[in-house]
This record gives sequence, C-alpha cells and structure tokens, in this order.
Amino acid sequence: MAKTNPGRFFEDYAIGQVLHHAVPRTVTDGERALYHALYPARHALYSSDEFARNCGLPKSPIDDLAAFHVVFGKTVPDISLNAVANLGYAEGRWLKPVYPGDTLRSESEVIGLKQNSNGKTGVVWVRTRGLNQRDEVVIEYVRWVMVRKANPDAAAPETVLPDLKKVLEPGDLVVPQGLDFSAYSFSQSGEAHRWGDYQIGETIDHVDGVTVEEAEHMLATRLWQNTAKVHFDLTFRPEGRLIYGGHVISMARALSFNGLANAQMIVGLNGGAHANPCFAGDTIKAWSEVLDKAETDVPGVGAVCLRLVATKGGEPFELKNTEGRYMSNVLLDLDYWALMPV
Amino acid sequence: MAKTNPGRFFEDYAIGQVLHHAVPRTVTDGERALYHALYPARHALYSSDEFARNCGLPKSPIDDLAAFHVVFGKTVPDISLNAVANLGYAEGRWLKPVYPGDTLRSESEVIGLKQNSNGKTGVVWVRTRGLNQRDEVVIEYVRWVMVRKANPDAAAPETVLPDLKKVLEPGDLVVPQGLDFSAYSFSQSGEAHRWGDYQIGETIDHVDGVTVEEAEHMLATRLWQNTAKVHFDLTFRPEGRLIYGGHVISMARALSFNGLANAQMIVGLNGGAHANPCFAGDTIKAWSEVLDKAETDVPGVGAVCLRLVATKGGEPFELKNTEGRYMSNVLLDLDYWALMPV
Amino acid sequence: MAKTNPGRFFEDYAIGQVLHHAVPRTVTDGERALYHALYPARHALYSSDEFARNCGLPKSPIDDLAAFHVVFGKTVPDISLNAVANLGYAEGRWLKPVYPGDTLRSESEVIGLKQNSNGKTGVVWVRTRGLNQRDEVVIEYVRWVMVRKANPDAAAPETVLPDLKKVLEPGDLVVPQGLDFSAYSFSQSGEAHRWGDYQIGETIDHVDGVTVEEAEHMLATRLWQNTAKVHFDLTFRPEGRLIYGGHVISMARALSFNGLANAQMIVGLNGGAHANPCFAGDTIKAWSEVLDKAETDVPGVGAVCLRLVATKGGEPFELKNTEGRYMSNVLLDLDYWALMPV
Repeated sequence: MAKTNPGRFFEDYAIGQVLHHAVPRTVTDGERALYHALYPARHALYSSDEFARNCGLPKSPIDDLAAFHVVFGKTVPDISLNAVANLGYAEGRWLKPVYPGDTLRSESEVIGLKQNSNGKTGVVWVRTRGLNQRDEVVIEYVRWVMVRKANPDAAAPETVLPDLKKVLEPGDLVVPQGLDFSAYSFSQSGEAHRWGDYQIGETIDHVDGVTVEEAEHMLATRLWQNTAKVHFDLTFRPEGRLIYGGHVISMARALSFNGLANAQMIVGLNGGAHANPCFAGDTIKAWSEVLDKAETDVPGVGAVCLRLVATKGGEPFELKNTEGRYMSNVLLDLDYWALMPV
Repeated sequence: MAKTNPGRFFEDYAIGQVLHHAVPRTVTDGERALYHALYPARHALYSSDEFARNCGLPKSPIDDLAAFHVVFGKTVPDISLNAVANLGYAEGRWLKPVYPGDTLRSESEVIGLKQNSNGKTGVVWVRTRGLNQRDEVVIEYVRWVMVRKANPDAAAPETVLPDLKKVLEPGDLVVPQGLDFSAYSFSQSGEAHRWGDYQIGETIDHVDGVTVEEAEHMLATRLWQNTAKVHFDLTFRPEGRLIYGGHVISMARALSFNGLANAQMIVGLNGGAHANPCFAGDTIKAWSEVLDKAETDVPGVGAVCLRLVATKGGEPFELKNTEGRYMSNVLLDLDYWALMPV
Repeated sequence: MAKTNPGRFFEDYAIGQVLHHAVPRTVTDGERALYHALYPARHALYSSDEFARNCGLPKSPIDDLAAFHVVFGKTVPDISLNAVANLGYAEGRWLKPVYPGDTLRSESEVIGLKQNSNGKTGVVWVRTRGLNQRDEVVIEYVRWVMVRKANPDAAAPETVLPDLKKVLEPGDLVVPQGLDFSAYSFSQSGEAHRWGDYQIGETIDHVDGVTVEEAEHMLATRLWQNTAKVHFDLTFRPEGRLIYGGHVISMARALSFNGLANAQMIVGLNGGAHANPCFAGDTIKAWSEVLDKAETDVPGVGAVCLRLVATKGGEPFELKNTEGRYMSNVLLDLDYWALMPV
C-alpha cells in the first residue's frame, strides 16, 4: 500500500463524521511580517501593537485572513485533494483574534452530502473549525466542494442538504472581547470616514492594483501549508499554475484599505465565489459595495456588510452577463462583515 | 466625494504645516529576517544579538535602512503620491537604534516651497521625523519633491528655500548610547580593516552583483508599506514596474559589506540621487569612495563619510558625462556617514 | 591591497588549521516562518510548539536543514569561494536542536589535503562545526571541495586523506535530550505509518512537485548569508543563475513529507551528491528509499536511514547510466538518518 496520501473520495464521507486535520501550526511575528510583505496590508490594528492596545486588545492580532488561510490550508489534504470544484462558503465567523505565539489546528464535520445525477461525483458540505492551543474556536465556516468518487459503483448516500444562512445576522457576529474604539485615532488609521459616513449601496473603487508573480503566490500558499499540486507544479498544469483563491482574497482585501481603512476587523463571511482562475501576470484590482450596516452590542463598534470584488485589471463594471455567468475578468465576489468605529 | 486618498497637490502645502502620517508599524524579528532574505546583508551588528551585546547594545537593531524605509513608506501617501520627481535628500540622521518590538510612526514638517516658473508644479521640502512608541525621534531627514498643482490657477505661495547642509558635520552625528567597540571581534565581523586603514579618496569595488526580480522588489516595498502604484501595477506602467529607490539603496549597501564589513552603523545621510530608474532584470553592482573621516566623541568609534554608487552591471567608471548628467547605467549616488571601530 | 575578500586558494590551507568563519547569526521566528514560505515544510515537530512540547522539547526547533544552511553559509567565503567543485559530504551529525533566539557561528578544521596531478588544483577536506551562543556544537559535518591554486608553482603539501565513515553507525546518532514519542499524535503528524511500517529496500514516490523560481532560491540563499556570486549575478553566469544545492535539499526533504511525515528529525548525513545543476524553471520532484533501520538508545525512538533523490520533473527511474554517471535529470542523491516514533 502506498504510504502517500491519496485524499478522500466522495464515498469516504458520512454525515456526522469529524475529521481532525493534521499538522498544527504555531503562528508568530514571522508570519505577521510575511503577510505584510505579500500583501499591501495597511489596516492599523494589524500593523501596530500600540494602535491595537489603544483599541483594547493586548497587541496586534495576526491578520484575520492569515488566520483563515492557516485553518483552511490544513483541510486541503482531507477535503479538496480530489475536489473538482470549490462551490461555496457560508456562515464564516471569526470568534477570537489569533495572536503571535498561538498554535492553530483544524477540524471539519461533514454536514451535507448529495451525489450528483451522473453517479461519478458528489457534493460534500463541511463545517470547519479552527482551534487554538486552549481549544477555543477562533474561526468557523462552512464550505462545500464537488468531489470525485473512487468507485463509481459505490452506493449513493442519503442526500442531506444543510440549512445555511445566506447572510449572517448582526447578532451572529462576535465582537472581540475588550474591543473599544473610544480612543480610536483616525489620523493614525489613515482615513477619516467612520461607520456613519458609509451608505448602503455606495461603491468604492480602490484605485490601486498589483500585478502578481509566481514566486509570491507560491510563498503565500506554502506559508499556509496548502500544498495542493495545482498551485506549484507546472508539469502537472502546463497551462499555468493556478493561484490559490485565498491569495486573491487577501490581495483584494489589502487593496480595499484605500477607501475602507477603518473597516478594521473581519468578523463574518456570508459567501464567496472564485469567479475565474487567476494566473501570474494578472493585475488584481478591487472595488467594494456597501451591502448593509448594523449596530453591534458594543457601543461605538459598528458593522458593515461589504461586497468585495476583485477583477483582472478592470474598472467597476457589470459583474455578470445576461445569462447570469461571471464576466471573464472577474476573479472574486466576496460578501463579508467588518467592524468599524461609529 | 470619493473615499480614496487623492494625495496632496502643491497648493495643499503651507510652510510650518505638520503632517502626521498614518499607519504606525511594529517591527519585529520577522522584518529582520525578511531584510536578510531580501538583501545580502551581513554586517555582524545586525546579524547577531551576541555580537551586538559585545558592542554595548542590548541586542541587534533592525537594519538602519529598514528603519528608514518604514519611516519613509508612511510619508508616501501624503508627500509623493502626486510627485513628478524625487529631487533630493539632506540632513538625514539616525538618532536611536530601532529594535524588534518597537512601533514606528512618521511626521513631516513643510520647511520649503517654491512654485516652478511654468505655474503647473512646485517643489516642496519636508523634514520628516520617525518616532518610536516612547515618542523618541529615531530618524530624521529632509526630502524634496516636485509636485503637481491640482488647480493651475491657485496662487503661488511665497518662496521659502530652506538652508540645508551639504554635508553633516561630525558633531551632528549621534553615536548610539552605550556603543563600545573595545571588545570588537574583527574575526567575527568578517574583515580586518579598521578606521585607520581607510584613506580619503580610496575607492573599493564591492565585486558582487545581484540580478533583481519583480517578486523581490515588490515584497520589499510592501514590507515598508510603500504602496505607490508605480512599483506594483503593470497596467499603470506598461513599460515596466519602477523599482523603489530604497530597494537599490539597501541592495548596494548590503553589497558593500565586501570591503566595508566594519562600516557597521549608518548614522548620517548627506544626500543622494536616484540617477536612473531600476527595473527587474537589472544586475546591481556597487562601489564606494571614502570621502571623509572623522573622530566621534566616543573613544574607539570613528566615522567615515562614504560615497556609495550603484550601477547596472558595471565596473567603476565615469559617473557623469561632459554635460554633468549621470551616465545611463548609474542607478544611485549616495553620500552617508557610518561608524567604524578605530 | 584590495579590501575585498579574494577567498582562499589551495596553497592557503594546512592540515590542522582552524578557520573561524565570520558573521554569527541569530535565528528567530522570522527565519522559521520564512522556511515555511520557501519550502512546503509540514513536519509537525517544526510546525507546532504544542506538538514539540508533546514530544518532550521546549518548543519547535528551527528546521534541521535551516540550521545546516546557516552553518554552511558562513563557510562559503573561506572554503568555496574559489572552489571549482563540491565533491562530497560525510559524517554529518545534528547534536543539539537550534531554537529561535539562538546565535550560530561556524568553524572548520582542515583534515585532508591532496594536490591534483595537474598541479593546478587540489582537494581540501574540512570538518565544520556549528556552535551556539553557549559554545555547544549543534551540527558537525565533513565536506570536501576542489580548489584552485593561486600560484601553480606553490609546493604541493603532503597528501593527507582523512579516514571517513561511508555511513554513520546508529551509535553515532544523537537523540536530542528529552525527546519522547510516547504521547506522539499520528493524527496531528499527518500519517499513521510508524518505524515498524517501513521496510528496508522500500521506495516511496513523494508525488508532489514544485517548479522553482529565481526570486525564491535567491531569498533562501541570502537568508543563509550564502552570497556566492553564481547564485545571484546573471552577468557573471549568463547561462543562468545556479541554484544553491541546499535549496534543492530542503525542497526535496519538504516534499518527502508525503509518505515520510513521521521521519521527524534529521540526525545524520552520511553523504550526498549534487548530481546535476538546478535552474529556475525546473520542477523538483522527489522519491526516497529506505536504506537501513536501527534502534536508538531512547525507547520509542527509531532511526531510519533514507536515500532522498530529487529529480527534474521525473518519476522514479534508473539513477545512473551504464558508465556509472548520474542521468541528466537527477539533481540530488542524499543519504541521511532521521528519527521516527516506533
């Protein structure tokens, strides 16, 4: 029997099954510095320990998306090694900030299964939790992927479709303990716009762009210990190494600083689509739309629901064609909640 | 009104104005390691905590140029977003070492203004200070840039030309508190040449060269949170992403280890010119000339004034043509003071 | 006299001479994070402080190969600057784990000399030791290189051929103090295969591959302060920058996680050949063969002797042609001992 990991196939999943993903990871100041080298990240809460302390936190957390990538990366060998498509995300919540020195691990529970009518593939829904060294859940999210069957004759499981929220309600969002924007410095954060200055329906073109390079997306993807072949091995994908979708998310979010500098912390992920693949040489640009606003149970801390769109080199434009399919230069369509000073 | 930063135009500056630049930054061991990955940096004081302690410091500081880049990067959105040219530096001084864990912020005072005769642009002089979390000034320097006017009809300000030193005097240089070269190990530092071994007028070809890559200069420039579009967005500059001038400075300084291994600490910047733009694929080489030598008020610690020239692939040669313009393969002409064991 | 380092020539070495290599280096969490960004490294003991503590260590050490590269990098200016060939390694032993915060330095003793019959070159054998800030030897290994003579008329030294072990015996291997696999988590480490599951003669194809980029190997090689021109300067080597052999070793070892996830710690290096040069654009793949197995003096800790072969893009295949020369797509043939839970 081969000693290498063959990954899991559709018939290897069962409702209620819990997968404990391998290779826990301690994140440090090194990961934090690398995040700033890989992305044009400037949100002050993640850049300055002093700024974070002024906001009631003990020091700067690891970027929320870096924490997400570490948790996600661990699931790849068990969830998506044989995936033919990443279909969606839902009910993502950041429950505790992650600090340098914390050790993260991941586990996933199978919460949905549906064999496709072709009998060769099926859809698997998992709820993944990232835990720290104190067994506190720091992140959770639902993800579903289409996976091949190893044996086409394997019996179809009973179909279970999880009941997922299209959008998290404000009451689902968790404001980190101690977060306090009463001494918030808008001069240090980089912009004067506060929660009250954003209108539902408003769009913001984030202006800046980054032309991406092979070395950079591979450094990033490896850092999260996501070692899926498609991102690294040109002999496996002679048409070009596929850039990890999370790299596009982090790039777009960092670009969104210009116009959303005070949307400091990500606390919810309602959904997201990797609309088209991204390759080295593409220039990533981004725009945002304010989808909703809500108060939180912490005075002075507001929540904004944002659509973050990443495109290849383009200005804002129609996202989808008349048949409802994404235009070819759309890379990402993400729907998330962030916290902002009121 | 757009929420993104339009930058400042010539008419937005006034003498005496102080700009508090955004996004403070905590630098850590991560930034220190990245500096060593990005540049062939081998000066022992910045490489080994033990060596630094032997020289009377509590541990290895962050490289002086890394500290400079962090301070400089913060000024870009306020000073050079609409700059059409970087014209010069003067009176740069390093006043306190920066250590892992320190948080840096920057502020700039407008000290000079002169509208150009075309009425469309003007020159702005600022004195920038980098401060740490204890409000101590760690670095200060003067920089001047040519900036566009947004409104050509805006009235010209009164011309104020700052009185700047061409060269810092030895008495202007600050030796870090506690620095003591009496137990200095020339075997550990890599070279036997001490202050007395260098002659004014002597030139040193640093031999080594580095062919630069897109991924590397972008990693570096982002790390300093300098997000100027010209460095990152190939759709904005189809003729090639311009490499941040500071990347060339750091590369040349690191190359100068070979021949100047004991020129440990940078304490003064007299001036500098980015003679020609640098692009990925260029091979950076460097040579130095000893311009001056001075004693400091600390026994055993000498100062050398060095001209550091970076070129594209070339040997030492004439720097300027008969009309006084830099030859096309000169990238950098820098004039700085460093500390050396006597 | 030029102030730059000319390197040493064959006639500059003498039996018994001890070279104290320059530029000590403090390694930190930054180096650790960069190692994970540069290589697809997933061995749990080096990824998680919690996992390491569960194995009886105070926290995650710096990767054994990263420690090796730091020690090795320091020797380059004194040993291989004028080398025309790297001929071999032997008797490599890891004697103490290296932790973030440790400061490493290197010294080498000349243990063998043999002038070649052409009178223009000779072979130098050195035993190199890496020491930490407490003067404990953390790594030692023998390496031999062919070096040019500066003066062909220099007298040949007496030939001294060191007596080197072809393979370290199990009793030569040092198990780190405190290492205890009794609470080892195979679910966290990523694979269920333990020492008893591997058979002598068994081969494992590690499946994954990485197409290497210029920026990445230069970042890595600089991080170890190995500044040999051949790796960086395209004007010096217009046919392509040569990738540091240690970069290939680390890449192959990281790829070997898939099938050898529990071969946690490297403790011995019996020998190794850089069979062919590696260049950017090559896709590195790897396979391993179990050469031997041994018990150690620590209950529960087994040792496996592994051949690690890196190739360009290829499946397992004949390593050598009928004349005993390596096939052109073989990059590395390494022979090492690792520790595994029994």
